[in-house]
Parts: sequence; structure tokens; C-alpha cells
Amino acid sequence: MSTKDVIQALGERNQKVAVAESITGGAVLSELISIPGASAVIGGGIVSYQTESKINVLGVPAQVIATSGVISEQTATEMAVAVRAKFDADIAVATTGVAGPDLQDGEPVGRVFIAVASAHGSWVESYLFAGDRAQIRAAAVQAAIALLGKHSGS
Amino acid sequence: MSTKDVIQALGERNQKVAVAESITGGAVLSELISIPGASAVIGGGIVSYQTESKINVLGVPAQVIATSGVISEQTATEMAVAVRAKFDADIAVATTGVAGPDLQDGEPVGRVFIAVASAHGSWVESYLFAGDRAQIRAAAVQAAIALLGKHSGS
Repeated sequence: MSTKDVIQALGERNQKVAVAESITGGAVLSELISIPGASAVIGGGIVSYQTESKINVLGVPAQVIATSGVISEQTATEMAVAVRAKFDADIAVATTGVAGPDLQDGEPVGRVFIAVASAHGSWVESYLFAGDRAQIRAAAVQAAIALLGKHSGS
Repeated sequence: MSTKDVIQALGERNQKVAVAESITGGAVLSELISIPGASAVIGGGIVSYQTESKINVLGVPAQVIATSGVISEQTATEMAVAVRAKFDADIAVATTGVAGPDLQDGEPVGRVFIAVASAHGSWVESYLFAGDRAQIRAAAVQAAIALLGKHSGS
């Protein structure tokens, strides 16, 4: 599913989307917004690059990060849930992971967790991407948009 | 000043940066984060694509938007001030403008306002970029990073 197809699917279902980005740093939103007509379905998003802002700005419970780590399925899920609430969106996608060059919190370079949240629940997937920082980020952007497309209508 | 030079200037001055994006939709953050070492200086940011989220998520006073319009020097400035406070950053940059194809709030396609805010004040500039949506956005991203560089250390 191309980015254009995902925007179209969201538009047909009249779904407003929000995005919470850590590892992808704004690139998911930027890619979605590049599609003509995207403004009708995009609420906005938060780039919470540092742990502090995941808690203070985005609203991820500090307890979740303390228990599961900042690179985890649980944190990705809470990021999606939090940004969906902030923007009063129908569906939200969130990314957290390790772009390298160093491992983080015991997770290897290339590990990425991506979550989608809607009124009907949440879904999270784990990935291990190869390549340098730019390649890992680009793969995470594509995976986030694909997961959003997979669950559009959910 | 290249993006790399801006990141280096902020790093040397130990300044943490935050970004509020409307017209650029995450592309300023994404460009800053693409530079190795950027994670040390980037707090994060908010993409507030719709007027509602500029008020509810970012915290721009509704009165400012009602009085000056969403595409204005005043709104750009309040976006920078608001995101700087949210992320407890030293310096912040914000973008608002018209990517087209239609004019908005009486402002022509290509009109962009970019503001920088620090503890020492705020600065705002007005631009009129030519081209299609992608070209106007790309010009706005470069202008935002240049303005951030110009006032780094302010």
C-alpha cells in the first residue's frame, strides 16, 4: 500500500490521523503530508525525541517507560494512544527504536517498534532493520505507513 | 549556513531546540534529525497542521489566531514561544504559511511566516516563495533552518 493509497483509505473512511514519532523524527508526518489531499485527514503529531518529552509533552505514563523501557512494544503503544487523545484523532501511529550507531537500553541497532491505536484497540509490531541510520529511519517510515494502512478502518 | 553548521552551532552553545511546524509538516525536524549528533540538541516538536491543534495541543492563544489569522507573524511567533515552553527548550523555530493550491485567509500561495524564540526575545520573517506545494515546503524548510542558525546563540 503506497502512502497515497493509505491517505485515500483514511479519507474514504473519514478518519483523522495523528502521529507520535521518536526514531523517525517527523519523517512519517512529512511523508504523509507530501500527498495532495492529505490535509483533510491529518490532525498533526508530536516528535518526542527524548524520554523526558515522551512523558511531559506526549503524555506517556512514566511508569510504562520505567518498567518496559523507552524502546519497547508497550512504550510504542502508549505513544500511539497518547497522541491519538491529544489530537482527538480516530487513528494514530507511533514509532520508537534504535537508529544507532550505539545500542540503547539493551536493544540492538535497527530494532524498531511501531504501534497503531484506534477506538477499537491497539496493534504493535516489532522490526529489525539493517543498514545505517538513514536506512533504518527510512525503513521505519515505510513500515509505519504500511501499518497505518493495514489498520485503517479499524 | 548548512543544516550541519546549524546543529554544530547549537551544540557548541549547548542549546536545546524545539520546532513547531504547520506548513512544513515535520520536514524541519526530519531534516535536523538527519544530521549525526543532532540528538544531543533536539528536544522535539509539534506538527500542528490544523488550527484546532495549534490552540489545543501547541497552546497558541485562540485570541491571537482570531485577531491576526492563522497565517501571520503573530501566530508564527506564538507557535515558537509555545513549543519552546512545552519542550523546555533554549530556542525554538516555527513555520506557518500557504502551500496552495488555494489561497488561505487572504494570504497568497507561497506566503510563509517563520519565527524564532529564545529567552532573549523573538524574531519573525515573512517570505513569498514561488513553485508548487513541494517546492514551497522545501523552501520553507531551508528558510526555517537558516533563521534558526542566524539566531543560534541569541
